Amino acid sequence: MSTARNGFTRDTRTVRDYIRTIHDFPHEGIIFRDVTTLFADARGFRMAVDQLLAPYAGLAIDKVVGLEARGFILGGAIAHQLSVGFVPIRKKGKLPGAVVSQTYKLEYGEGVMEIHDDALVPGNRVLIVDDLLATGGTAAAGISLCERLGAEVIGCAFVIDLPDLGGRALLEELGQDVHVLTSFEGK
Amino acid sequence: MSTARNGFTRDTRTVRDYIRTIHDFPHEGIIFRDVTTLFADARGFRMAVDQLLAPYAGLAIDKVVGLEARGFILGGAIAHQLSVGFVPIRKKGKLPGAVVSQTYKLEYGEGVMEIHDDALVPGNRVLIVDDLLATGGTAAAGISLCERLGAEVIGCAFVIDLPDLGGRALLEELGQDVHVLTSFEGK
Repeated sequence: MSTARNGFTRDTRTVRDYIRTIHDFPHEGIIFRDVTTLFADARGFRMAVDQLLAPYAGLAIDKVVGLEARGFILGGAIAHQLSVGFVPIRKKGKLPGAVVSQTYKLEYGEGVMEIHDDALVPGNRVLIVDDLLATGGTAAAGISLCERLGAEVIGCAFVIDLPDLGGRALLEELGQDVHVLTSFEGK
Repeated sequence: MSTARNGFTRDTRTVRDYIRTIHDFPHEGIIFRDVTTLFADARGFRMAVDQLLAPYAGLAIDKVVGLEARGFILGGAIAHQLSVGFVPIRKKGKLPGAVVSQTYKLEYGEGVMEIHDDALVPGNRVLIVDDLLATGGTAAAGISLCERLGAEVIGCAFVIDLPDLGGRALLEELGQDVHVLTSFEGK
């Protein structure tokens, strides 16, 4: 906080300041970065949406694609801000219509992400959003799903980057433009 | 569509027109009402948000509470529209911080919904949003969680009501104001 001479107090917290750190979730030894405290704050949530969109001002975007589940919260807000449609990418078996599926590696075994096969059409320009970029596995699967429907991914935006997990490097190797608001060291 | 004499064509589709019906999902005999086709359309998504909020114009709302997972998409957009914070209610084990839990009945067995115990404070006025009101089990659990944190639920807004499943009647028995955009008969 800073107080001006006219008595007005300005809130100087950044997006990072609203993120809560929780130890040993989902299991021992993991340092979990919790964005629910960011989203629950009116100022924090709006700042996050505005800052996530800043690099894309003036660019044509047809759809916002959000990754299940926290990417739905951000993606809904960002699609609304842009006045465009929102397309979910979900874990296997959650989408009711015909889907395209993409497997990706997990620490142990693999996961599957899906998109409705008619959710994007060739030439669509999409922005992919999620709260966290860690290993980049789900994001890379998301990019692949969009591209398999003929869409062009014009950017991938995340609140948090964990650079030591290599996700940003992976997405940049795939030729993607990656935008993050804040980074935390460690795994 | 309707075309005026000046040649301007007006899109006359309603929110209901964007909802897709899928048979036998998630299992045989179920008629699933799919809102992803509504959310994916720029006009449909914005209409849904505007119409969900219409009854609450001018009312003080401190937080929007969304139910996992499709309620996150709508809830993110609605919180953003109102410039308030968003609070998720999730299935058991998904929230990283200390939670309050509420069980509710499923067709077979029971489910558990959770909210962070510091996500709302006494006196908060909240709007609960989700895509679908069916039996009302998760919504009733959501109301209970908000109230157990001392918050006041000023409304529950859903895109779709399935009145034959009794959810609306249940929530109204709980004293809630229920707002839905469209209804479908059948179970």
